Amino acid sequence: MKILESAKEMRRWSRDQRRHGRTIGFVPTMGALHEGHASLIRESVAKNDVTVLSIFVNPAQFAPHEDFDTYPRTFETDRAMAAALGAVAIYAPRSDSVYPEGYATYVHVERLSDGLCGGSRPVFFRGISTVVAKLFNVVEPDRAYFGQKDAQQCAIIKRMVRDLEFDIDIIEMPIIREADGLAMSSRNRYLSEGDRQRALNLSRALQHARELLDAGERDAAKVIDAVRSAMQDVPIDYIALVDADDIAPVEKIDRPILIAVAANIGPARLIDNIKYTPVECKAKTVHTTAMQGIQS
Amino acid sequence: MKILESAKEMRRWSRDQRRHGRTIGFVPTMGALHEGHASLIRESVAKNDVTVLSIFVNPAQFAPHEDFDTYPRTFETDRAMAAALGAVAIYAPRSDSVYPEGYATYVHVERLSDGLCGGSRPVFFRGISTVVAKLFNVVEPDRAYFGQKDAQQCAIIKRMVRDLEFDIDIIEMPIIREADGLAMSSRNRYLSEGDRQRALNLSRALQHARELLDAGERDAAKVIDAVRSAMQDVPIDYIALVDADDIAPVEKIDRPILIAVAANIGPARLIDNIKYTPVECKAKTVHTTAMQGIQS
Repeated sequence: MKILESAKEMRRWSRDQRRHGRTIGFVPTMGALHEGHASLIRESVAKNDVTVLSIFVNPAQFAPHEDFDTYPRTFETDRAMAAALGAVAIYAPRSDSVYPEGYATYVHVERLSDGLCGGSRPVFFRGISTVVAKLFNVVEPDRAYFGQKDAQQCAIIKRMVRDLEFDIDIIEMPIIREADGLAMSSRNRYLSEGDRQRALNLSRALQHARELLDAGERDAAKVIDAVRSAMQDVPIDYIALVDADDIAPVEKIDRPILIAVAANIGPARLIDNIKYTPVECKAKTVHTTAMQGIQS
Repeated sequence: MKILESAKEMRRWSRDQRRHGRTIGFVPTMGALHEGHASLIRESVAKNDVTVLSIFVNPAQFAPHEDFDTYPRTFETDRAMAAALGAVAIYAPRSDSVYPEGYATYVHVERLSDGLCGGSRPVFFRGISTVVAKLFNVVEPDRAYFGQKDAQQCAIIKRMVRDLEFDIDIIEMPIIREADGLAMSSRNRYLSEGDRQRALNLSRALQHARELLDAGERDAAKVIDAVRSAMQDVPIDYIALVDADDIAPVEKIDRPILIAVAANIGPARLIDNIKYTPVECKAKTVHTTAMQGIQS
């Protein structure tokens, strides 16, 4: 496993790979790896010649009162796990080289960053889009892997890549869950046994929403109400039903949507979500594609 | 001359150059080329294997009341001039491909974008840093050339390149002036003969400031007052004396500085500037470099 600590070393390594004709898969992380990250690394290893992981707890995405200082840092176990999964390099830059004195530049994806997690964490997504743009400039990957667990982040990164014209494919991978349904998260380790039980309300409420949607419910307000009822035992931060691509609220469910929830459980702020495309839209999508095929 | 109208074509062209081991010089412009641009193209042609020019009148850097619609568009003469100077490709993307529907991502360089031209033109520098980041991602040059005429822009682009970790050298070239001292600008063509004469006040006032500095004046307020007196015949937008790198106001001239002026002359908003490094700082800089040489 190659450990790269400076942008210069990282870029040299990547260009050397490319010179040898190898494709580069990239998995950006904050470390504290769990099965969710493992699924991204596995997919990257399967689809690219080499896989590089970044481990960087990004100060720009934490507000002053948040858990930057206590966020779990487990470099040695992360390194062993990444190596076992087939990653060949880790980019682990120092914070003062990523944000040197006089740092002034931020990448902001408007509108998509405002609601949901952006509502309760105002600098959060600006910090993420900025650091991901920087990582992309240094790692220069062909493909980058993100988990649907952070669905709003995925939508923001996809929009940023399109808008800033990065030549990188963004691959969004499904949420990995514990056997009982809890979405995997580095912050789950903050939970007591009691918290852990209450945390199950999130995935159960979303599962209930999916059943309603499968049964034909298309009124967003009714679906949100049902999710809220199912989460009455936990301190809800938000429940949102939005367009899956641009994160704008939806009233009638007539396109691919995202239902996202956040709650404060004990010391942890947990998030979870499902995506849903109404069957009638799937039919429409196929039809549109066929039309375009004829016209172009 | 290769004319490239899509990001895909442009990127393919650049990567093909690189595959052949050629260095790429890049001169971003809004067209309406004059001798100022010519000096950038000449330098790029001299220092790189191939030079590509972009011509794009960037809507994101114009406010609604500004001259976006009437900004001079002279593609055929620009193309001939660029070819005569030795540029081999022009990237001229369509506006709707640069800013597609749902465009949401902006690169903002804080603090450096606030004062001077940023004070009178609030979206201006955000539009510039955004489009330059996009152009860099598509053209992927080794070096990019900018004119000191737009000194605040140069400082912002240099900071952006450092902060977002672009692997591109930014080269800042001196201001090119008419024989009588007027800084060259695409907007000079808006001037009547009377405007043209009044416009000379800008370069004369800056020349006067340089004489004061050469004579040892180090009080910023006194230098600014002298510039203001020398510009009393024109409607001043701003007179600023700032740190040349971070564009923050300076009281005592004890480091490299920028004196920048803007004025509204007839239908045109004109800018001009000088940079100045006190002799006592030059001595200090040499000393510091020598020290670093010993330590590293």
